[in-house]
Amino acid sequence: MCLPGTIEAVREQTEREGISRRAALAGGGAAALALLAPTAAEPRGLARKKRRVADLTHVFRAGFPVYTGDEPRRRTLKTFANDGFYSQEWTFGEHSGTHMDAPGHFVEGRRLVPQLRPEELFAPIAVIDISERAGRDPDAEIRPADLRRYERRYGRIPRGAAVLMNSGWDARAGDGARYKNADSSGTFHFPGWGADAVTWLLERRRAGVIGVDTMSLDPGAATVFAAHVSWLGSDRYGLEGIANLGKIPPRGAQLIVGVIPWEAGSGGPCRLLARY
Amino acid sequence: MCLPGTIEAVREQTEREGISRRAALAGGGAAALALLAPTAAEPRGLARKKRRVADLTHVFRAGFPVYTGDEPRRRTLKTFANDGFYSQEWTFGEHSGTHMDAPGHFVEGRRLVPQLRPEELFAPIAVIDISERAGRDPDAEIRPADLRRYERRYGRIPRGAAVLMNSGWDARAGDGARYKNADSSGTFHFPGWGADAVTWLLERRRAGVIGVDTMSLDPGAATVFAAHVSWLGSDRYGLEGIANLGKIPPRGAQLIVGVIPWEAGSGGPCRLLARY
Repeated sequence: MCLPGTIEAVREQTEREGISRRAALAGGGAAALALLAPTAAEPRGLARKKRRVADLTHVFRAGFPVYTGDEPRRRTLKTFANDGFYSQEWTFGEHSGTHMDAPGHFVEGRRLVPQLRPEELFAPIAVIDISERAGRDPDAEIRPADLRRYERRYGRIPRGAAVLMNSGWDARAGDGARYKNADSSGTFHFPGWGADAVTWLLERRRAGVIGVDTMSLDPGAATVFAAHVSWLGSDRYGLEGIANLGKIPPRGAQLIVGVIPWEAGSGGPCRLLARY
Repeated sequence: MCLPGTIEAVREQTEREGISRRAALAGGGAAALALLAPTAAEPRGLARKKRRVADLTHVFRAGFPVYTGDEPRRRTLKTFANDGFYSQEWTFGEHSGTHMDAPGHFVEGRRLVPQLRPEELFAPIAVIDISERAGRDPDAEIRPADLRRYERRYGRIPRGAAVLMNSGWDARAGDGARYKNADSSGTFHFPGWGADAVTWLLERRRAGVIGVDTMSLDPGAATVFAAHVSWLGSDRYGLEGIANLGKIPPRGAQLIVGVIPWEAGSGGPCRLLARY
């Protein structure tokens, strides 16, 4: 009953289309052969490698911790017993769960969710892992040195990339107190993007998206919100509350941002999927 | 300010990965050449063809017409003037806007949204166009003959396919009265899936998804809901309120179903994207 045929069919069709399209792109037999040569001799095991999908989205649940305001809530609208079918109603702020910050969330006049072009919802992923440092220091920030270290190991961050912070914080999302990690004065303490790293990505790499596995692009203790202001101010969007970044390769996956086109939306819940 | 680099970067990366992966799949130089031969000679114009993204999603707006219950509503939570940033709150039933019906919406014990595997959110699209007939007869149903006619023209519907009805009804979504098209007794009149066609897709083709550009998988005047019961009962999901199906090729596009993983969700709003 679990659609046993679906994955297989999708993969077959993708590959069928892929082969002819790539062939056309190669533009000629000789060029095509050159491209094929290094891999055509690889062992059969590799040839059977399947394309994988990872879910970078937390279940959108009542009580999911939010930065400010009320947590999401739900109520049952229809039941099998009374109505013959089942459904729920939801109420929540746009910055709940795994969600997008549209440019116009923080900078007046910038674009809202429905103004984003569908092409902007696809991007190659670069995962910046600072989980070890964040484990020792909840106020850890991504610095330009972290980005340069990534590039030495994995190659240049592509123009248009989605550069996503893995601080290990997604494991805390089930517990609002640990996710926010507030001190006795109420100030949050969780990792985030340092202002210099955001500027570096904007000016040196023209990246397309930044994201975090916490509640905010800026570190929890921030008061100036430099990451929000400069990134969203450049008319790019951000992603917050991402899950499972430790489970995908640091480079080579493609992000799909299934954001609902919320009318006049400052952002809002989205389904994040990674293919690799 | 509009991420000029994003599309280019995504395409380049996709193609780079694509070529080496396809090559590995081809399993040998000779086989690869045979696959390349028919297209390698095509004119350069084709070689430059870009991969396109179409948005199959209506803007999720307050007042979007729903089959039953209250229409979605929104209110402003934060404003630049008062708070320095902007956000909204939403309240709606799960079957609002462009949305999914999970198997458990109509058949007790079947899966809810978070139980769907991420791989099930990708499927090759077959668009069944009945817009001419639906223009004359709002009670038009998709029949097995429509599916056979599609296959004579476009080839066999792949196992796991998303088979989507284009009745032209998406043009009415801005006007609830025309979208529902109720008669004086309150009965809706809009096109939908006939029971025999649903059975045919399940048993003969093992399709993965059915969808409509109306408010319901079943025709508006239905009282038995055969499409809901048999399709969702097979533990497959359906899609309702789809937009722009007349703008994509009838075959060859790939569907991405960006459904929010609503906790205990009977379905819910999703972002539908088509790549081709």
